[in-house]
Amino acid sequence: MKVIVDLCVVPLGVGLSVSAYVAACERVIREAGLKSQLHAYGTNIEGEWDEVMAAVKRCHEVVHAMGAPRITSSMRLGTRTDREQTMEDKIASVERALDRAASDPGA
Amino acid sequence: MKVIVDLCVVPLGVGLSVSAYVAACERVIREAGLKSQLHAYGTNIEGEWDEVMAAVKRCHEVVHAMGAPRITSSMRLGTRTDREQTMEDKIASVERALDRAASDPGA
Amino acid sequence: MKVIVDLCVVPLGVGLSVSAYVAACERVIREAGLKSQLHAYGTNIEGEWDEVMAAVKRCHEVVHAMGAPRITSSMRLGTRTDREQTMEDKIASVERALDRAASDPGA
Amino acid sequence: MKVIVDLCVVPLGVGLSVSAYVAACERVIREAGLKSQLHAYGTNIEGEWDEVMAAVKRCHEVVHAMGAPRITSSMRLGTRTDREQTMEDKIASVERALDRAASDPGA
Repeated sequence: MKVIVDLCVVPLGVGLSVSAYVAACERVIREAGLKSQLHAYGTNIEGEWDEVMAAVKRCHEVVHAMGAPRITSSMRLGTRTDREQTMEDKIASVERALDRAASDPGA
Repeated sequence: MKVIVDLCVVPLGVGLSVSAYVAACERVIREAGLKSQLHAYGTNIEGEWDEVMAAVKRCHEVVHAMGAPRITSSMRLGTRTDREQTMEDKIASVERALDRAASDPGA
Repeated sequence: MKVIVDLCVVPLGVGLSVSAYVAACERVIREAGLKSQLHAYGTNIEGEWDEVMAAVKRCHEVVHAMGAPRITSSMRLGTRTDREQTMEDKIASVERALDRAASDPGA
Repeated sequence: MKVIVDLCVVPLGVGLSVSAYVAACERVIREAGLKSQLHAYGTNIEGEWDEVMAAVKRCHEVVHAMGAPRITSSMRLGTRTDREQTMEDKIASVERALDRAASDPGA
């Protein structure tokens, strides 16, 4: 089962700057060979469910090992059985819908 | 590693009533022997990381098997290494803080 | 437009214990006269969109005023136009589905 | 109060393809003059709290008006009082942390 997730890891008890911890998660995801895309409030990850979830667990382990005693993450998880859909497909599909509306202002 | 998660599973393509799918997830979680508590917009689950995540995966599999071709879930995941904390501890801790404030209106 | 939200407010830069901040949000919600129910990983709130969102904003303001320089919240927001549905309705609907399945193990 | 949110709007009861509804939300956000960035599982939005929240409400109104009888959205909301921080700042901060680690493999 393929999954696309959107993950935001928040370490507590380490002050206000969390970028080093988020960067460590990025490295975990990349080292796992997973396709991912960072954005301003999380990271999109695409892959097989077990591999993606193993990376999410490893993020928590690594961030704890860096000294964060508490972590609260939020995640969206999307699966579908009707067809394959990549992260690029999802964005392209919205952009096509935007184009259609732009070319038909009455829509 | 223990985790407390808050899970909300949303099946798409099955119409407006999603209670049968949410109930199926509840059964998955209970059959896994995990401690859980349903609320109006999700379910709290407490347990070992691997067992909780296996149940979340099983929820997606079961909801797909019931006929939902697409699922989008949202989840919070909390881990801590400083001390054990149960779901009841979390609620009791907020309620004690509410009591303290009530007995000291100047606080 | 009525909304049911599930809100989890996370203050950063204030150490590991966040219960005083969560309790302050509870007071904000109650003082706004909104129906709400605390759980182990957030709070369900039900009411008119503008009133609920004003309370969510007030939560951020109050938690900043208590000394948290940074806040990251996560929220689910549900609206429907087909019919009215309360928080109790949502839970009852899942519980009925659980009962149906229990009385018909072949379902 | 400035806020950076990450919004994912999910219409129910309209079948499996949700891109037209997501595109409608994008138009709402752009017409509000808000800075935003689409990703594969949501949209980052940056601006004054009241303006951002007005756009989120308008998204629900527009998606209902397009025929979706039920909507469930998930959102992250970040505010800070210690300093201004844009969406670009957040990404640049993580990328600098990635660079530092790359140039110091022992870190």
